[in-house]
Amino acid sequence: MSATAYDNLKQLGRELQLVGDTQALLSWDQEVLLPKKGIQYRAEQMSWFSGWQHDRFTAPEVGEWIAEAGDSIESQEEKANLREWKHQYEQETRLPKRLVQEFAETRVHAQSAWTEARQKSDFSLFAEPLTKLIELCHEQAECWGYEEHLYDALIDKFERGASTNKLTSTLGALREQLIPIVEEATNQPKFDRSRLSGPFPVEAQQALNQEVAEAIGFDFEAGRIDTAVHPFCSGMAPFDTRLTTRYDENDFCSSLFGVLHEAGHGLYEQGLPKEWRGQPIGNSVSLGIHESQSRLWENHVGRSLAFWEQWMPRAIHHFPQLMGLSAEDMFAAVNEATLSYIRVESDEVTYDLHILLRFELERAIFSGELAVKDIPGEWNKRFESYFGFPVENDSQGCLQDIHWSMGIFGYFPTYSLGNINAAHLMKTALEDDSAIETGLEKGDYSPLLNWMRQNIHEKGSIYLPDDLIVKATGKPADASALVEHLQRRYIRS
Amino acid sequence: MSATAYDNLKQLGRELQLVGDTQALLSWDQEVLLPKKGIQYRAEQMSWFSGWQHDRFTAPEVGEWIAEAGDSIESQEEKANLREWKHQYEQETRLPKRLVQEFAETRVHAQSAWTEARQKSDFSLFAEPLTKLIELCHEQAECWGYEEHLYDALIDKFERGASTNKLTSTLGALREQLIPIVEEATNQPKFDRSRLSGPFPVEAQQALNQEVAEAIGFDFEAGRIDTAVHPFCSGMAPFDTRLTTRYDENDFCSSLFGVLHEAGHGLYEQGLPKEWRGQPIGNSVSLGIHESQSRLWENHVGRSLAFWEQWMPRAIHHFPQLMGLSAEDMFAAVNEATLSYIRVESDEVTYDLHILLRFELERAIFSGELAVKDIPGEWNKRFESYFGFPVENDSQGCLQDIHWSMGIFGYFPTYSLGNINAAHLMKTALEDDSAIETGLEKGDYSPLLNWMRQNIHEKGSIYLPDDLIVKATGKPADASALVEHLQRRYIRS
Repeated sequence: MSATAYDNLKQLGRELQLVGDTQALLSWDQEVLLPKKGIQYRAEQMSWFSGWQHDRFTAPEVGEWIAEAGDSIESQEEKANLREWKHQYEQETRLPKRLVQEFAETRVHAQSAWTEARQKSDFSLFAEPLTKLIELCHEQAECWGYEEHLYDALIDKFERGASTNKLTSTLGALREQLIPIVEEATNQPKFDRSRLSGPFPVEAQQALNQEVAEAIGFDFEAGRIDTAVHPFCSGMAPFDTRLTTRYDENDFCSSLFGVLHEAGHGLYEQGLPKEWRGQPIGNSVSLGIHESQSRLWENHVGRSLAFWEQWMPRAIHHFPQLMGLSAEDMFAAVNEATLSYIRVESDEVTYDLHILLRFELERAIFSGELAVKDIPGEWNKRFESYFGFPVENDSQGCLQDIHWSMGIFGYFPTYSLGNINAAHLMKTALEDDSAIETGLEKGDYSPLLNWMRQNIHEKGSIYLPDDLIVKATGKPADASALVEHLQRRYIRS
Repeated sequence: MSATAYDNLKQLGRELQLVGDTQALLSWDQEVLLPKKGIQYRAEQMSWFSGWQHDRFTAPEVGEWIAEAGDSIESQEEKANLREWKHQYEQETRLPKRLVQEFAETRVHAQSAWTEARQKSDFSLFAEPLTKLIELCHEQAECWGYEEHLYDALIDKFERGASTNKLTSTLGALREQLIPIVEEATNQPKFDRSRLSGPFPVEAQQALNQEVAEAIGFDFEAGRIDTAVHPFCSGMAPFDTRLTTRYDENDFCSSLFGVLHEAGHGLYEQGLPKEWRGQPIGNSVSLGIHESQSRLWENHVGRSLAFWEQWMPRAIHHFPQLMGLSAEDMFAAVNEATLSYIRVESDEVTYDLHILLRFELERAIFSGELAVKDIPGEWNKRFESYFGFPVENDSQGCLQDIHWSMGIFGYFPTYSLGNINAAHLMKTALEDDSAIETGLEKGDYSPLLNWMRQNIHEKGSIYLPDDLIVKATGKPADASALVEHLQRRYIRS
């Protein structure tokens, strides 16, 4: 009887996954390909699927299966699955179907409004759908419940175990340690950009990016790279992981590091145990862990001197104008610290200041202190205080990121957790296995990838994020490894 | 009560359409983008969705709604919807769910096997999945039932009102009339191909194709063109119609006429009444009508002298090496009749011989006269007898078309119906409205498009195909207009 209940859950999970992965394709397609006028119908499709998923998962029999399944299961995997099913079922049954569908539909339209608002740098075009999404997120959080802050309920969706207070403390402490590094790093002598001038033809960028992604282990028979305004990674099936990037003909590094970043996410997706697909343990565990993988490959690998010692000849092959630049030159060029407007283009040192700004604003929005109409003003005020110069238009300010248009709040702080985790994991991995460093020096990335496979990817969601880090490294992550790394890399005088 | 039953059907129809259009995206994606290793999971997705659709539509309550709805409905639209729901319900309830799912899953794998078999020109790689698909189609046909030939049940899926006997007679008569034209046309003096030599860069081809597709009325805010090995058109949402084509750097006409053809399909899809989406009458009515639209724009418009008088300057703009060629030269070049291997590259005169070959083979397969293992031999024997020279490998023979790998049998003959319908519609349209010819001469395609919109596109599936043709033209279609057209265009001596 109990075995049957567990099997029923597994069967249901597989169905929900097949359908959910189809929604992922609808969503990917919306960002990459969908014709402009197709948005209304796509919203209706997304809404219908969300409603169907909700109905299917919140049926009373599912609650009965969950109650029954506990009696007989024994393995660690089964227990972890049940832990997650319980949590998800509790969360989902607290939401009315109307809210689920309204959220799914609203975010499709909001994304479309945001795209136009950003193009025109006109926040007013985005204010109404944003207000609606924030209201819906409020309502979700009230349904889910929280102990201290309403914002906690939103954070929990992306990072189990995190909270407003914990993040305030972690990010605040990080900021204290970053400030002196930022100050010193941004005052280093600048690399002469004229030595790195374009044009860098898109086809040549694509060829180099593909070589690099393959070299670090991304499997192109189980994935692809496409072009999109917003770079992202979608693991939409066990053998179908799709990255997007965008190209700047004047700067090949923009797409190269974009691809390294998204391929880092992609390696995690491709490394999840295929046979668990459709079970909760088959999923990536949290965004803070996901982002550790992208930042690891982008920054710890891609911005290292060893990387450029390997790849400079290939870069020159694709971009002959780079002839005469050394690996040291490129290392210097890609590790310049500059206070700038755009988060995704910012360097490792100043990046977390961008996150802190967003975290503080979201906290204020969901505590009711900040109204939507005041977001641009508040953004600009805080930006100037952190970065020292004013925002000139909202496209380079509060309209730059896609997240809010997708109804995603509580997501940004996981980027800083990712930076912290990446440095912490990298430090442990290098100490664990000397073949990793030797490998990196000669362009063999498999020892590092294997370490991540064994300690992170293959674990899926068996452990909650904090436990996973402790299992992998022997202790909780703190900012010390990140700070050490930044000092070593950026304080060169 | 009855009104409610009809409303229930409408509501269900909308849901099935939303999901069906999602399956269309899964299928489009499989042909255009899906990474190689993603095929197994995609097959599982397609199978699951087919099973879900089957369950949802064959529920007993749906039969009750259909029985009840007839009492109160009055309008022509409602009656046509009910006619189609009845037909679809009868057909679908006759199939066991197991068969529906097995068919959906098998065709995904078969398509993948066919791709490899065609690349390697090795029929043996395709024989097993093809055998399986033919068995499943046999089983479907037995479930659906038929009066004379089992093959009739398969044809009915694509062309209501057609049958083996009717098609044998129509295509046989067409062949008799074509033979003397083929003989004379293929013996005309040949155009000097060296005057049309490449390279024609892909970007320039894309630019010209886009201009042409826009000029005939294809709306790129509600559609797009992508690259795929197999050119096709998918109307996957009311404002999302996607064409595919492939590029040959030595021959820009290959992609140009491919796009004109697919855009013809696309105009039909974009012209279907949006407000009917999800009702049977909102669908295109048959493949023989669909193909009339593609062949109309490809051949009657795109291969006309008037077209090249308009477009020669743009072609020269994109491909400067064409400077010195006149519209008459291009007209001659794109209207050469040649007996050749590949159906999709064949000219208007010899095209239907390719169809006849396939029709005869399918008839023999489903009457049990032809075993799968004997298909290549039989194909080659008949090809040589019709075309006068031997097939050298199966890639240019029985492996050239994708259709069988998708489990699509009974589809090919609708291509010839499309040719017949296109000529018949074009003749009537030109007689009906003198603005059409004037428009074509000055590159204004809207009078012709408007005629098709009013007489074909906007009718959706209100009428069955034969009735639609009579409504539009005053009489049934026969091959006379096609034969006249071919004589006029090809017999130039």
